[in-house]
Amino acid sequence: MRLARLGAVGEEIPVALVDGIAFDLRPVTSDIDAAFWRERGARRVRDALDRGILAPLPGAAGLRIGAPLARPGVVVCIGMNYAAHAAESGSPPPELPVMFLKPPNTIGGPFDDVPLPRRATRTDWEVELGVVIGASAHSLDTDEDALSCVAGYVLANDVSERRFQLEESGGQWSKGKAAPGFTPLGPWVTTSDEFDPSEVGLRSWVNGSPRQDSRSSDMVFGIAALVRHLSQYMRLDPGDVVLTGTPEGVALSGRFPYLTAGDVCAVEIDGLGRQEHRFV
Amino acid sequence: MRLARLGAVGEEIPVALVDGIAFDLRPVTSDIDAAFWRERGARRVRDALDRGILAPLPGAAGLRIGAPLARPGVVVCIGMNYAAHAAESGSPPPELPVMFLKPPNTIGGPFDDVPLPRRATRTDWEVELGVVIGASAHSLDTDEDALSCVAGYVLANDVSERRFQLEESGGQWSKGKAAPGFTPLGPWVTTSDEFDPSEVGLRSWVNGSPRQDSRSSDMVFGIAALVRHLSQYMRLDPGDVVLTGTPEGVALSGRFPYLTAGDVCAVEIDGLGRQEHRFV
Repeated sequence: MRLARLGAVGEEIPVALVDGIAFDLRPVTSDIDAAFWRERGARRVRDALDRGILAPLPGAAGLRIGAPLARPGVVVCIGMNYAAHAAESGSPPPELPVMFLKPPNTIGGPFDDVPLPRRATRTDWEVELGVVIGASAHSLDTDEDALSCVAGYVLANDVSERRFQLEESGGQWSKGKAAPGFTPLGPWVTTSDEFDPSEVGLRSWVNGSPRQDSRSSDMVFGIAALVRHLSQYMRLDPGDVVLTGTPEGVALSGRFPYLTAGDVCAVEIDGLGRQEHRFV
Repeated sequence: MRLARLGAVGEEIPVALVDGIAFDLRPVTSDIDAAFWRERGARRVRDALDRGILAPLPGAAGLRIGAPLARPGVVVCIGMNYAAHAAESGSPPPELPVMFLKPPNTIGGPFDDVPLPRRATRTDWEVELGVVIGASAHSLDTDEDALSCVAGYVLANDVSERRFQLEESGGQWSKGKAAPGFTPLGPWVTTSDEFDPSEVGLRSWVNGSPRQDSRSSDMVFGIAALVRHLSQYMRLDPGDVVLTGTPEGVALSGRFPYLTAGDVCAVEIDGLGRQEHRFV
């Protein structure tokens, strides 16, 4: 099942996308937020669809597509989780997952403009497979336990300003990941029962020219290992998002120019849709 | 004015503390959260107190003291912001503020037990002066603008597991800062009109033996400079918290043993009260 949020910023309406039709979820939930996932919202939506009590949202095709998740408690990022990207960044692959955080107020819709921060000179794209947490994950012992805490998957661009991340940060990367709009999410969440994250293609383009083109099977640490590992250090809560790292092909490699105003970045993951946003 | 939250976890009641009396704020606000600060909650509380429409909360003295802030969007931390602490950690003082993030679900009450994570071997204390954001802060030009975004101040212990932060992190500190309970906050927020953060004492103890004892005037970067600097990289929103770094005297220095189960840690800042929590 695909879940999305349609409408103006701050007024998004939760919907389920079925055969191209957007069913209004407001009879079931006010939003796709922490409470939705905690209270087994995806199951309740499926029941409501099966019982035929949800109606198509009128005018859905004309609405802005928002981020499909409202207000995650935390956006966790994994660094250097593809060996070829670690190499292009000048690092060996990590021995353990490297974790840092993005402020949740960086989240934007998949087609929203992304403002370049003042003083930005090295803004970069990073297509990433996002994991949506459905049940609290803390001190988990097995990969099976970890996967049972995953409710779905979502496409993300972990936009990064390298000057802030690497030159002005004292080594802590969050500073270059924190600007408003730097986490376009969506267009939808696919629930975990309908998506196998182990072998999908991830791609990005700038102004139509290809940049990244890799497969999730190239991850150093897979989804279950990441969630289990993170749960040793923190408690992941329903509605939280884990971005699982980006493959090679970013500007930091030196092979491509950084983004400037007017550039259009597209990112795509098989089964999770496509984003396209202009940097302004 | 001092604002606090009293009651069981998840059921805290917002109060104003005036001359030792806890006035129930529920006629004015449901909680001390982002909406409270965004809608000038402190001013509304003061008006309500002046008009005499708030009543003391019955049985307040018997209630648990919770964290005085509910659900910040982000907990921002500043690293190495006291030269002597940077030195004891083996680093020179930073040329620019070093920023990293803690998950907001690390927040606990000032007297709650703090669980030691599984595998923890080097858990450390860090008394810190916390800044409570009252108005969105983004791309600010002056220290004056920065201070106008500060609504209040709060005492925090930025509990840190050094093994996770330094040995298992790949250099990104958040992993050692993220365990549930690792951010005791409170006992209250003092509004900025009644607190001068530039020259207050910060102290900590373990089992009654002194550890840290410094003054906020020793900060490398002061409050206004920090908020202005952070606003170049991110948008701070109402209800967010910035922890401004810890002074010398932590276990990482090698001068004191790390915390073990049963240890009681106390932290204190002049005018912001005292915390005391047991590690379990």
